[in-house]
Amino acid sequence: THKCASRPRKVRQMKRDFTYYSDPQRIQRAVKTLASFTEAERPFTRLVFSPEFKQARQWLEFEFRKAGLDCHVDKGGNLIGLRQAVDDASEQKKVIIGSHIDTVSAGGQFDGVAGIVAALEVIHFLNQQNISLPFSIEIVDFLGEELNVWGLSCLGSRHMAGLLTDEMLSRTDQEGRQLGLEIESIGGKRQPPRTPRQDADTIIACLELHIEQADRLETNQTDIGVVTDIPGISRYAIKVMGRAGHSGTTRMPDRQDALVAASEVITTAQDTGIAIAERDNKHFVATIGRIDVYPNGAATVPGEVNMVLDLRASHEHSRDEFLRQLQTECMQISKNRSCKIETQLISNASVAVMDNELRQRLSHAANSLNLSHIDLSSGAGHDMVHLSRVAPAAMIFIPCKDGLSHCPEEFATPEAIAKGSAVLARTILALASDEPYNE
Amino acid sequence: THKCASRPRKVRQMKRDFTYYSDPQRIQRAVKTLASFTEAERPFTRLVFSPEFKQARQWLEFEFRKAGLDCHVDKGGNLIGLRQAVDDASEQKKVIIGSHIDTVSAGGQFDGVAGIVAALEVIHFLNQQNISLPFSIEIVDFLGEELNVWGLSCLGSRHMAGLLTDEMLSRTDQEGRQLGLEIESIGGKRQPPRTPRQDADTIIACLELHIEQADRLETNQTDIGVVTDIPGISRYAIKVMGRAGHSGTTRMPDRQDALVAASEVITTAQDTGIAIAERDNKHFVATIGRIDVYPNGAATVPGEVNMVLDLRASHEHSRDEFLRQLQTECMQISKNRSCKIETQLISNASVAVMDNELRQRLSHAANSLNLSHIDLSSGAGHDMVHLSRVAPAAMIFIPCKDGLSHCPEEFATPEAIAKGSAVLARTILALASDEPYNE
Repeated sequence: THKCASRPRKVRQMKRDFTYYSDPQRIQRAVKTLASFTEAERPFTRLVFSPEFKQARQWLEFEFRKAGLDCHVDKGGNLIGLRQAVDDASEQKKVIIGSHIDTVSAGGQFDGVAGIVAALEVIHFLNQQNISLPFSIEIVDFLGEELNVWGLSCLGSRHMAGLLTDEMLSRTDQEGRQLGLEIESIGGKRQPPRTPRQDADTIIACLELHIEQADRLETNQTDIGVVTDIPGISRYAIKVMGRAGHSGTTRMPDRQDALVAASEVITTAQDTGIAIAERDNKHFVATIGRIDVYPNGAATVPGEVNMVLDLRASHEHSRDEFLRQLQTECMQISKNRSCKIETQLISNASVAVMDNELRQRLSHAANSLNLSHIDLSSGAGHDMVHLSRVAPAAMIFIPCKDGLSHCPEEFATPEAIAKGSAVLARTILALASDEPYNE
Repeated sequence: THKCASRPRKVRQMKRDFTYYSDPQRIQRAVKTLASFTEAERPFTRLVFSPEFKQARQWLEFEFRKAGLDCHVDKGGNLIGLRQAVDDASEQKKVIIGSHIDTVSAGGQFDGVAGIVAALEVIHFLNQQNISLPFSIEIVDFLGEELNVWGLSCLGSRHMAGLLTDEMLSRTDQEGRQLGLEIESIGGKRQPPRTPRQDADTIIACLELHIEQADRLETNQTDIGVVTDIPGISRYAIKVMGRAGHSGTTRMPDRQDALVAASEVITTAQDTGIAIAERDNKHFVATIGRIDVYPNGAATVPGEVNMVLDLRASHEHSRDEFLRQLQTECMQISKNRSCKIETQLISNASVAVMDNELRQRLSHAANSLNLSHIDLSSGAGHDMVHLSRVAPAAMIFIPCKDGLSHCPEEFATPEAIAKGSAVLARTILALASDEPYNE
């Protein structure tokens, strides 16, 4: 096995063809297999803690073991496959490569999965080339990266950063399922420690490959996006309270229709978002994607509406200005439509800047593979947001078709994933040989 | 039993106190029992075909039998309790008294139930007084009066009028349940005949008591509303098609957010509805009460929205003008928000005028009981809309608290129901003795 193998030779002397480091066909097979773990009527849906998710985890653990990794689930429910450092490693250093296998409802086959499959490719390459490293590698399937019914995303990476609070763990969904107990059901603890990983200072790099989920790489025909920063994400619960009534007998002027008021909030959020995004040079988006209407009967004037507002901003002042404007408009809407409107913060993550040295190493690796690359700001949130609080973290993006994501049409070519995986492999080899990265 | 009893004496000589004809305490007990058949977490919910509905039907059939009625379920799934005419009746004439026991989601305890309980009171009175009539009486629990998941209301009365089409019966809900098979499961036929009741010409009156579901009777401190007409109800499915995408990476100007477009349709429908109702002297209301968003995830730009538009108009030209204006606005919204909007008619019922002679008889009966009454136009739709196509039909309304209906706060006093029931009893006695009604 790899433990008896020698340290890598000079990376600069190694092949420059990405297919030397990764296998598009093997990547395609793995993506296809993971896609098969889905709710049948709603592809591709593999919600965290669902039967489909648990089946996919079983398959993944099997693949990890086949690749010689030692597997365990940590207290936060992350599946970790460990590749030990070379025996004579003087100090216990670690590199984390990870992403996630959960999806949103009716999501895609590549968001998260591409990063997991690419990480596994790095292991396959190291095994095939019989390379031992002076640090251990952890391949991590971070638990529940996508926003879930408890109003929370990035469960596993929050855990590693010690950011899962008692309040979060005690949240229950509409069916009464408590988040902490769900984490326990997957092999974690119902009350994981609220401190960062004990060994955080031994982690020399956290790396993640992800599809871009936008079309800048595709439009610019570029292979690799090196992520500069990940915007802050704030989510708010908006509750609109009116008065339910019979649709036939409640006269128009007497109505307190919560859906009408909510609709005005939605269009206002959109139009305010468009205006602020236009003025803001950097990234700003505002979305109301989830809405629950009560009682939601065709013959009843809606009495109550609950919505989630999702804000992502590279400039915090843009977010603040948006909220100020929306608040003012909501007061007017509330008055005009005779409904009460309440807004409450559910979660907040500030802007995360990616590690400068790792970014340079990733760019250097892309260059050495003759792959084109540009620096990019991320639109979406990722587990690296939380890892970056406790260790050096960085990400690369690969192109995805038409920039579509979180929908069944999401697509990335096996070659694009293979190129990204090769960049990860070269970066890890360079970290091992401690070659210069800013030549 | 009543079959051996004598014909009623002159009605004008009978008592003028409503408690002679009906018992508020018995009414209260029956209402309370029916209210207990509800989804536990969502009172009062007794959707047609649900376990709660089937249990309530069982209880009602038991009550019918206790009152000496012969019970059967007709091909359209209506529960019918028959009180035979006096033996020597020369011709088989019939009077129908009915309403419904199904509810909307999170509805009330009185909508429909008040009419069923009042009808049963009439039977109790006739039995107690040992009165035989020259016509049979059918107490009918009309199947599924409320708008259901198949986009259809008034299943049972549509059946009696021969208005259930193959298309309607073949509709399936989101769980794949087919309407025809559900009707069969309740004791009807999966393909009931598409002709009116064979014996329609023997029906001399169809009567229904219902809560007003508005506050005119309460405001005017009036006991009885004699319904003049029931507005036409048209329902339309509105489908908005945009493009789903990741909420973090889909830039604001690139969005085709179906929920934003749908929201603009909703506020436009409301504002157009208010304007037209203001200009229209008679009844006009427009409601979008049901909305389904796909995929309805907080981190996904909505890709598709389905809604139901419910229109009720006493003037058809008001409805036509509304639709014209909405159509024009939808074209603009579709263009501005880069979404496709499709509208499709689901069901349509034209204005139903109540039978003039029966209306006069009902007013006359109220007078004779010293109860105040006014003529009213109905806001809601009722089974009498469809019965009126095949037989003389009429309705009375009783006051309900604050005009609230289709919500748990819905309330009518047992005395109000008893007064209405007394009006029904006096009207039936008058029909039997053929007394003048327009003195």
